[in-house]
Amino acid sequence: MKTGGHQKAIGVFDSGVGGLTVVKELMKQLPGENIVYFGDTARVPYGTKSKDTIIKFSVENVKFLLKFDVKLIVVACNTASSIALSSLMFHFKIPIVGVIRPGAKAAVRLTKNKRIGVIGTKTTVRSESYEDEIKRYDKSIKVIIQSCPLFVPLVEEGLIRDSVTKEMAQRYLEPLKKAKVDTLILGCTHYPLLKYIIKDVMGSGVNLVDSAHQTAKEVRGLILEKGLANSLRGIPRHDFYVSDEPDNFIKIGRRFLGKALKHVERVKEDV
Amino acid sequence: MKTGGHQKAIGVFDSGVGGLTVVKELMKQLPGENIVYFGDTARVPYGTKSKDTIIKFSVENVKFLLKFDVKLIVVACNTASSIALSSLMFHFKIPIVGVIRPGAKAAVRLTKNKRIGVIGTKTTVRSESYEDEIKRYDKSIKVIIQSCPLFVPLVEEGLIRDSVTKEMAQRYLEPLKKAKVDTLILGCTHYPLLKYIIKDVMGSGVNLVDSAHQTAKEVRGLILEKGLANSLRGIPRHDFYVSDEPDNFIKIGRRFLGKALKHVERVKEDV
Repeated sequence: MKTGGHQKAIGVFDSGVGGLTVVKELMKQLPGENIVYFGDTARVPYGTKSKDTIIKFSVENVKFLLKFDVKLIVVACNTASSIALSSLMFHFKIPIVGVIRPGAKAAVRLTKNKRIGVIGTKTTVRSESYEDEIKRYDKSIKVIIQSCPLFVPLVEEGLIRDSVTKEMAQRYLEPLKKAKVDTLILGCTHYPLLKYIIKDVMGSGVNLVDSAHQTAKEVRGLILEKGLANSLRGIPRHDFYVSDEPDNFIKIGRRFLGKALKHVERVKEDV
Repeated sequence: MKTGGHQKAIGVFDSGVGGLTVVKELMKQLPGENIVYFGDTARVPYGTKSKDTIIKFSVENVKFLLKFDVKLIVVACNTASSIALSSLMFHFKIPIVGVIRPGAKAAVRLTKNKRIGVIGTKTTVRSESYEDEIKRYDKSIKVIIQSCPLFVPLVEEGLIRDSVTKEMAQRYLEPLKKAKVDTLILGCTHYPLLKYIIKDVMGSGVNLVDSAHQTAKEVRGLILEKGLANSLRGIPRHDFYVSDEPDNFIKIGRRFLGKALKHVERVKEDV
């Protein structure tokens, strides 16, 4: 049995609060693991920003997490995963997992009619990352992508089951319904909070793929495979760091994590 | 007649694209002046962020504009004006004009029933800056404030005359209608783009105060008073700098400025 360093934490970063949906799944699937989360709330959102700005921010975020001597890093943000993952993997030696591949793989397994829809931020959609990933597994699959830029502010405003959100969902999802997709990837960490409205608009025959769940599964597989599982018994630590004041993060974060956040600290200096 | 340095530019900064409504008014009211604009598009928005993050960003933005040897600086962002103006005035010797006082002054002049409404971002509303400013002029005025957090993303998505925006306007403005305000300050540079919908919801009897127009008037007065007007004839320069890639800024900016933006450059290094 391998020893040493297994109690190291899993590092997770996101542009803000959305990545907590991934943390929620990690806590469920890997209940013994320590987690260090960084939310870049001073510079959120990433989804409307350019490629090299996102890469720059992502590199800084990884450097911050490395200070905690983490054993693996999860890029819990679809935009950062779409744009920055390959650069991060090139720059850093530590295992880094993004949210795109796990979601794409699950969708490929689920689709019967080979028509997969993807919704995400403008930058994620423009990157064509999901399309590329899906085509790696099966070139014959038709991928229909659609950006839903108002979904993030609507979720952050708490309009989760609201008529305005329903109206926007109908507009955004119309092309995907027309294209008769049988599987839809929720390609933004905020979107699982809208799954009831999305399900309602798309119809019950359509599979919704939640990247958070799939990503946690991938991380679990990797940790077991590499023999990195925390062998210490006891209550694991879950520490949260943010680049802006934590008040709003704590308030909104509760909705994403499904429970109260303890140990939230602001990073005073530039990360 | 004073000489020297009058051809120096007016410096303007905003968290992103919204401050172009102020630039538009400056161009109209001071057609001979050179302007240098900085939009912090890599870190936009400010309206959901905390006080000291906004002060930090604002100080950096002023330092950037000072590199151009400007003669006066306009904080063309309600959030930054609300939070950071006094710190900026304390740190820097150059004349600095915010958008709060001009808007507040105009509203005080316009109200007949002494009931003024203010709409803005969460941070602007929380700062109570408009309330403080109005009370300086007349303590007996009742100020009703309301944050409209979805207005900025709705404008940036171009949903200017859309049913969803109308629905949100009805919800946000309901308390102001109930309070029977006769004057409403559009306390965010994005909101003038929604003035038709806001007018429609509030009714034609309510005065809408556009801070951009009032701020340009204030700047014009200050420049004439201090003898700083550009004495050189010729076509003035209007230069725009942004912290993220300019594509989106140029596209959306057109809507705010009412014409195409020339000379837009990305600031490569940290400002």
